[in-house]
Amino acid sequence: MTGGPRRPGLFLTFEGGDGAGKTTQAALLEEWLTDAGHRVVRTREPGGTEVGRLIRDIVLHHRGEVAPRAEALLYAADRAHHVETVVRPALERGDVVIQDRYLDSSVAYQGAGRVLGTEEVRQLSLWATGGLLPDLTVLLDLDPAVARRRLDADDKPFDRLEAERESFHVRVREEFLALAGAEPERFLVLDAARPPAELTATVRDRVAALLG
Amino acid sequence: MTGGPRRPGLFLTFEGGDGAGKTTQAALLEEWLTDAGHRVVRTREPGGTEVGRLIRDIVLHHRGEVAPRAEALLYAADRAHHVETVVRPALERGDVVIQDRYLDSSVAYQGAGRVLGTEEVRQLSLWATGGLLPDLTVLLDLDPAVARRRLDADDKPFDRLEAERESFHVRVREEFLALAGAEPERFLVLDAARPPAELTATVRDRVAALLG
Repeated sequence: MTGGPRRPGLFLTFEGGDGAGKTTQAALLEEWLTDAGHRVVRTREPGGTEVGRLIRDIVLHHRGEVAPRAEALLYAADRAHHVETVVRPALERGDVVIQDRYLDSSVAYQGAGRVLGTEEVRQLSLWATGGLLPDLTVLLDLDPAVARRRLDADDKPFDRLEAERESFHVRVREEFLALAGAEPERFLVLDAARPPAELTATVRDRVAALLG
Repeated sequence: MTGGPRRPGLFLTFEGGDGAGKTTQAALLEEWLTDAGHRVVRTREPGGTEVGRLIRDIVLHHRGEVAPRAEALLYAADRAHHVETVVRPALERGDVVIQDRYLDSSVAYQGAGRVLGTEEVRQLSLWATGGLLPDLTVLLDLDPAVARRRLDADDKPFDRLEAERESFHVRVREEFLALAGAEPERFLVLDAARPPAELTATVRDRVAALLG
């Protein structure tokens, strides 16, 4: 039933900082597509596989230092395993894949946030995935100061990336916007400060157009 | 006291298939250098750090499949962390680093053994390490059939790489020899079927020359 332009399934990713509402929007989209009769695989990086959960534990919860290039390579390893064992098989079955974070997060967080080089980190992810790009990437854009207030309202402790300084999160946001500017066809950029129901409606319209 | 050509310390690696005698020769070299008054750091990849041991557990002992590119990226992540937190600090202090396996193992096992591309895997390791190459690499070359008989004599269960088919190990051996041929200055290639004491003496002579 579903059909992306280049393969049987449809690959949709949500990107943006923590606290921007990616999980909420992904869940609402999943519900809407499932109700419409589509087979949906909802997944995430890092941690969408058993190997990925082991990697995620190292990256986000290791108490000591993790060298910046090691962090970037661990994310790429998680991605390689996840794409080969979860995403590609689902797309080949014709399913809709809704994914929380993908290669744009690596470029923004490791390439720009950790200043490892955006092009090098992008090439790393492209090698890891055999060049797989999403059909649509929804960027939920939010001022890092607003996102921080949302996260502070939670009672969960910060992980290693959430605990970074504001300048880090400002670089991450700017890189997400630069990536969207460079690929306007792939990206849908939304102001995450808008009411959630409005965001949901806009995402649905765009996905409906892709489903044809 | 010690001095490599390009930095205060000296970086020595042992390469070759499992069962070739790397651990024995590295231990004897460590003892000889320590007795001569050198500060020695003996280490290994994968698994020379706490982060590395977590990675090693995933690569070698995970029960399910690990995608080949994920495996290569995990080794590169281990290497990035190990070089930044162990090897470079030791070399900057002027120590001798004796290491069991380094980037040549990745090129041979993942690049050639897993057919991921030797040049791509080499570039991955060079990015991971900021281009750090050993002053000397001792390649203990052994027919995979002989190595297998040595390993069969142990009572340890095989890990995921040891359990690969013979054709895999033949590709690995050929790539090690090709790497040595391409960098004759860096490599000392030894026939690991020779008596261990002879191998030890040859390694000592070469290291003594480097220590000047």
